Amino acid sequence: MSDKKQIYKPRPVSGFPEWLPEVRLVEQQWLDHIRKVFESYGYASIETPAVEELNVIQAKGGANDSGGGADVDKEVYVLERLHKEDGDKEARLALHFDQTVPLARYVAQHFNELTFPFKRYQMQKVWRGERPQAGRFREFYQCDIDVINPENLPLHFDAEMPAIIWEILAALPGMQNEKIQLRISNRKIVMGFIDALGIFSPAQKANVIRLIDKRDKLSKEDFESLIVKAVQESSARVPQASIDVFKKFFVMADSLKTETIKGQLEALRHPAALKNVNDNKTYQEGLEELAFVIENLSHLPKGAIIADLSIVRGLDYYTGTVYETVFVDDPGYGSICSGGRYDDLAGNYINKHLPGVGISIGFSRLFDRLRQQNKLPVGKVSPTDILVTLMDENLRPDAAKKAKELRDKGFNVEMFHKGGNPKKQFEYAEKKGIPFVFIPKQDAPGVWEVKNMATREQKPEQEWLKEKTRAA
Amino acid sequence: MSDKKQIYKPRPVSGFPEWLPEVRLVEQQWLDHIRKVFESYGYASIETPAVEELNVIQAKGGANDSGGGADVDKEVYVLERLHKEDGDKEARLALHFDQTVPLARYVAQHFNELTFPFKRYQMQKVWRGERPQAGRFREFYQCDIDVINPENLPLHFDAEMPAIIWEILAALPGMQNEKIQLRISNRKIVMGFIDALGIFSPAQKANVIRLIDKRDKLSKEDFESLIVKAVQESSARVPQASIDVFKKFFVMADSLKTETIKGQLEALRHPAALKNVNDNKTYQEGLEELAFVIENLSHLPKGAIIADLSIVRGLDYYTGTVYETVFVDDPGYGSICSGGRYDDLAGNYINKHLPGVGISIGFSRLFDRLRQQNKLPVGKVSPTDILVTLMDENLRPDAAKKAKELRDKGFNVEMFHKGGNPKKQFEYAEKKGIPFVFIPKQDAPGVWEVKNMATREQKPEQEWLKEKTRAA
Repeated sequence: MSDKKQIYKPRPVSGFPEWLPEVRLVEQQWLDHIRKVFESYGYASIETPAVEELNVIQAKGGANDSGGGADVDKEVYVLERLHKEDGDKEARLALHFDQTVPLARYVAQHFNELTFPFKRYQMQKVWRGERPQAGRFREFYQCDIDVINPENLPLHFDAEMPAIIWEILAALPGMQNEKIQLRISNRKIVMGFIDALGIFSPAQKANVIRLIDKRDKLSKEDFESLIVKAVQESSARVPQASIDVFKKFFVMADSLKTETIKGQLEALRHPAALKNVNDNKTYQEGLEELAFVIENLSHLPKGAIIADLSIVRGLDYYTGTVYETVFVDDPGYGSICSGGRYDDLAGNYINKHLPGVGISIGFSRLFDRLRQQNKLPVGKVSPTDILVTLMDENLRPDAAKKAKELRDKGFNVEMFHKGGNPKKQFEYAEKKGIPFVFIPKQDAPGVWEVKNMATREQKPEQEWLKEKTRAA
Repeated sequence: MSDKKQIYKPRPVSGFPEWLPEVRLVEQQWLDHIRKVFESYGYASIETPAVEELNVIQAKGGANDSGGGADVDKEVYVLERLHKEDGDKEARLALHFDQTVPLARYVAQHFNELTFPFKRYQMQKVWRGERPQAGRFREFYQCDIDVINPENLPLHFDAEMPAIIWEILAALPGMQNEKIQLRISNRKIVMGFIDALGIFSPAQKANVIRLIDKRDKLSKEDFESLIVKAVQESSARVPQASIDVFKKFFVMADSLKTETIKGQLEALRHPAALKNVNDNKTYQEGLEELAFVIENLSHLPKGAIIADLSIVRGLDYYTGTVYETVFVDDPGYGSICSGGRYDDLAGNYINKHLPGVGISIGFSRLFDRLRQQNKLPVGKVSPTDILVTLMDENLRPDAAKKAKELRDKGFNVEMFHKGGNPKKQFEYAEKKGIPFVFIPKQDAPGVWEVKNMATREQKPEQEWLKEKTRAA
């Protein structure tokens, strides 16, 4: 064994964040809070493996994934064993890039053992092998809730999702002063509208949807002219009326953005000169569903949610309600919490019709934003409430006993690891943000005093304990 | 978009377990309990990315990994992006196979930002790309605590580890009737002993250590004859005395197994006819350290820990105290909780001397053993305490209000998702193990009764609430 040691200097791996203990402590508070709210609505936790068979991941969407599929594929990490043996004939494994595909697979696989409607939450890391670039994570937490039910999933759940999310976001430590807004739409409205016009091929439809999806990033003028262009390119003979109708629709849709009342949706339901559209079943369903969802969220504070028909979501599997969540003062940051209703994701893996609705908090992106803006309540470096000092090695049994006693009372307690040097022990408490230090009273074995590190006050243990118990 | 859907029937991926919600609920209780005990001793949580640079993983042990290194290498999963672009020049990434290497890297990388002694816990999944085989996980939770300190780490921590682990294992739901034992040794004893004999080459030493490590799996006779063989092979001229000493050492070592008192260790410290050994500094240090550790664990129940000199651990990086934990009635199952003191793991990544000590609960293996033996308290399918029934769609606002009110009181509450059909709603509560069902009193709007699903008793809400509050 050689004397000179080899050192490999580590460096951060781009896109794979890790936090110091004091930041992790806040992250834990966030995760605990989210879990608590999810559970308060009766959602059950599941975890799925970090990997899925590559086939499972690629089955997602099936014939349906004209849009997102290809992009997602690019981001998949596959696993290789470093020393593969010849003759290994295992299925290729890939790290999951979201929690929706694993959920769909899970429901199909365990179908006969689950109680429906199946309400689950899932808070795990997901991986996306994007090119490394500033501000993009390749490993991040997502916090998802979804409900899946065979054949028919009550619309009630579409309204429950934003209520849960609002409750979570409004109370995350450090988020008090952030102005957040959930924007809700129903894809059926735009899809029905476009269908009813009867002027687009499927490919053109996808193009128009993509335009609508980008609407927030375009000026009003640019959006209108691009839409007009799309309409004009659509077929040889487009009546001017169709173009007018299109413009009118979005003017009306925009009026929804400030008011969230049913009356506004009624206006879209009976638009003059939109006979075709008005007769479209999908369009009407969409309006009714959106009205139900908005109505059932009337208990939320004004401005917490709005109906916004420009929300369509990129992923093709959404078929009804869709959600996005933005910082009102910085909508360009993108959605921090998105989801919607999908008609049959789990049906990719089992011969059943399994509609679902879900929403996902982009946890790490949100957390890191607040971290970078110094808005997180970062304080203590450890969970320790009390440091029991060890003034002399001979006092070790006494100190150990006191530490155990306090632990049994529910405190988080460290006993200092080495006898002597009081100054060092106080410095240690200071550095770690430990609020209380227990000090043995001189010449009075077994008697302790408590120093409050914030106020520098010192008082007998019994007095301190009484106050603590009263406060709790 | 085609009509006929393609179905990819999913199957379990060998070695990657996943649980149904009712089992996951118990897993969460376990993880919560472990976290609580770790924190009660002031350990702070960290999480590291799922991946490390392959170089970091392979730097582990450095010149030192004559034993474990090669084996571990075989089990490493490396990542590939499914669609790699030309010119990608990123470092190769590998999934971590334990939490000790990531900790060492973390401490080196963040050295200037940490408070020492750095006490952290870590509860994440780790991955080992073993050949798939029954009962072996390729993805599993480990729950680790470690302390690292520059230059010098007080021995106090070597005694704290088993105390924490004992407290955890004794109170895990479902573990009440399991007889568990922590077996502790100090590598310096065996290493010093072997060195003092002065008859082995380094390779032979490794061989003898490996024999000792396997001692529990061999009969007494087989072990002795293999040791004698090893001694005889060691050099041309081995005095019979050395062989006798070897045998005697293990006979004495065995006597430790039943008694855990200091006196026994004293016997090993002054063995007649072992002059060489007795003068060996490493040997003496080992005995003293082991005595300190055992002594500081005297508050644990009889039989909770024993000194056992046959514990040496396979991994070469241990240099002092070593731990294993076994089911007393089934030691052949192997250690469920292992660790020890390492002199300089973090020193592989920074030019400092950073001794540490730690222990790791093999969470998934332990949990799955109890699951398979039906010893886990598996009950409820969800965290829901109360189901608020929805007897009619018109009553939705009432039911929603009641659900919110109960949630604000701290209960986990579901409102049934669809009006009507009381029978279905009770069945749902039954199936999910929801203990209480709220039922609106007929012809008395706003008045609720509570049905206890276990006793079938029904009583007015106010009465039920009073009892609940008293019980809490």
